Amino acid sequence: MYIGAIDIGGTKTIAAVTDETGALLARRKFETIRYDHAAHFALCRNELLACLDELGLSLSQLAGVGVVVPGMVDGNVLLLAPFAGWRNVNVVEEFSVLLPDAPMVVTEGDVNACGVAEAYFGGFTDLLWMTVSTGVGSAIILNGQLYTGAHSVAGEIGHIKVEFEHPRVCSCGQHGCAEAMASGRGIAAMVEEAVKTDDAYAALYETAGLPMDARGCEALARKGDSTSRAIYERAGMYLGRALSAALNLLDPQRVFVGGGVAAALDLILPAIRATLRESCVPFVQDTLIERTRLGYDASVKGAAALVLKQLSP
Amino acid sequence: MYIGAIDIGGTKTIAAVTDETGALLARRKFETIRYDHAAHFALCRNELLACLDELGLSLSQLAGVGVVVPGMVDGNVLLLAPFAGWRNVNVVEEFSVLLPDAPMVVTEGDVNACGVAEAYFGGFTDLLWMTVSTGVGSAIILNGQLYTGAHSVAGEIGHIKVEFEHPRVCSCGQHGCAEAMASGRGIAAMVEEAVKTDDAYAALYETAGLPMDARGCEALARKGDSTSRAIYERAGMYLGRALSAALNLLDPQRVFVGGGVAAALDLILPAIRATLRESCVPFVQDTLIERTRLGYDASVKGAAALVLKQLSP
Repeated sequence: MYIGAIDIGGTKTIAAVTDETGALLARRKFETIRYDHAAHFALCRNELLACLDELGLSLSQLAGVGVVVPGMVDGNVLLLAPFAGWRNVNVVEEFSVLLPDAPMVVTEGDVNACGVAEAYFGGFTDLLWMTVSTGVGSAIILNGQLYTGAHSVAGEIGHIKVEFEHPRVCSCGQHGCAEAMASGRGIAAMVEEAVKTDDAYAALYETAGLPMDARGCEALARKGDSTSRAIYERAGMYLGRALSAALNLLDPQRVFVGGGVAAALDLILPAIRATLRESCVPFVQDTLIERTRLGYDASVKGAAALVLKQLSP
Repeated sequence: MYIGAIDIGGTKTIAAVTDETGALLARRKFETIRYDHAAHFALCRNELLACLDELGLSLSQLAGVGVVVPGMVDGNVLLLAPFAGWRNVNVVEEFSVLLPDAPMVVTEGDVNACGVAEAYFGGFTDLLWMTVSTGVGSAIILNGQLYTGAHSVAGEIGHIKVEFEHPRVCSCGQHGCAEAMASGRGIAAMVEEAVKTDDAYAALYETAGLPMDARGCEALARKGDSTSRAIYERAGMYLGRALSAALNLLDPQRVFVGGGVAAALDLILPAIRATLRESCVPFVQDTLIERTRLGYDASVKGAAALVLKQLSP
């Protein structure tokens, strides 16, 4: 079986053709045209057709096309993609016009699509997917189905409050959200604060030629620097607070973590686990938490999984 | 249609026969025999038969019997009823032996059963039921189904941490849980603290002949006493913190509140709403929160709803 998979990101987009296991048979990566969604969708079609050409396939041989978008989706419609200001775009309708020979077009937000892929390819019926990147979000799979809520906003784990006494302002305008405290930006903010009051710490970044952000901090933590390790532990504690609320409520089989900060999961997991031990009811405090099995192309596999899920009973 | 409904509580039990709307056609209330679950189950059978006698009905005319128990249920088995120490009791099997002519026996924990009843009788597919009583718990109805999680412990909203700086110890052994801070006991603990440092406040209770607990505090709050109102507002803030995590994650259609403290929902709702406004993403912060429509007999109607739900597609 062949599936068309398009992952539209804030800066880059990937078009691919996968098989029914999610393996990428052809893959093309290109810049996202932010200022004009229609122009970008047309480019996505061309790149998908180029993938098909590479494989000697035609559109009608695809089981369907999944389109993952970086924003909030309700049914067929992208309500808002904050990075580009796209609003109320009927993704399914527009791609159906662009790809009239495709048997099916489906769409979903990137975080939800990753959750669907992890459940579908991993054989889980109840899982929590958590993206920790510039933002923090989650997807909830219950009884084998993506759960999206009454207003399609379920899974907003990143806006659970985790710091009441010394909150940082969040991108949502509120204070002390997990996203404000423990995303890549939250880690960078902790680095910035530490650097301000500790010249020796600032010098570490300069000497090593590292950026004063989450990646630089990760590199120093891996070299054993205690301030950097403490910053990651603090991020872990905050993520643990948000996760403990989710585990107490949802009791999933497993938690998968993706996004840029997931690469540093080993640095934050001990603090997450310590927080869960003091914040969760028995049974759920030992819920397994692991890094995504989908790798770097999680969202593209998510696009494929949307089609596969639609075809499965 | 006739349904047998048994609600076993920590101190009292109700046996009833209802119709398909949950209306109680016959109802008998009696003490719970705590020291011996088998003796109590036999008593429940006798009281249910007495209800049937009143109506001139026989067991086989019932569509089924629902049994609600005050504890944690997994499938047919009551894993633990903390109040009495009952453990690993196969409720369905034991009642099926006691009531061989009943076409069906089903069981569930009291909080979950109330959630099922509120959804079934109210026509909701996605709701959060919250019990605020001696403890704090919740039931999650998603896509029309009760969601119980991988270990049957989903819905533990009462053990979401809501106070990190000045936490009180919880019945679960941890600190700062919503149950420790905002249950009937949590409110009583706030009263106790206030009374210790404020003789005039203690005198208010003595003069009015009110107990220094949640009910006494409610009575004073209704007379306009500012300390008592502040205690209920604080409880509302804590419940709002736990609820905001649940709403961000689940985005339900509506929240229903039951349990003893629900009678004072008007005193805590303004603080809950204020907390939701500063702790929830848009769309969910205005989710309707209302007192249960099931009234005092919520759990008995829950027992009936378990049977009706089983019979519906």
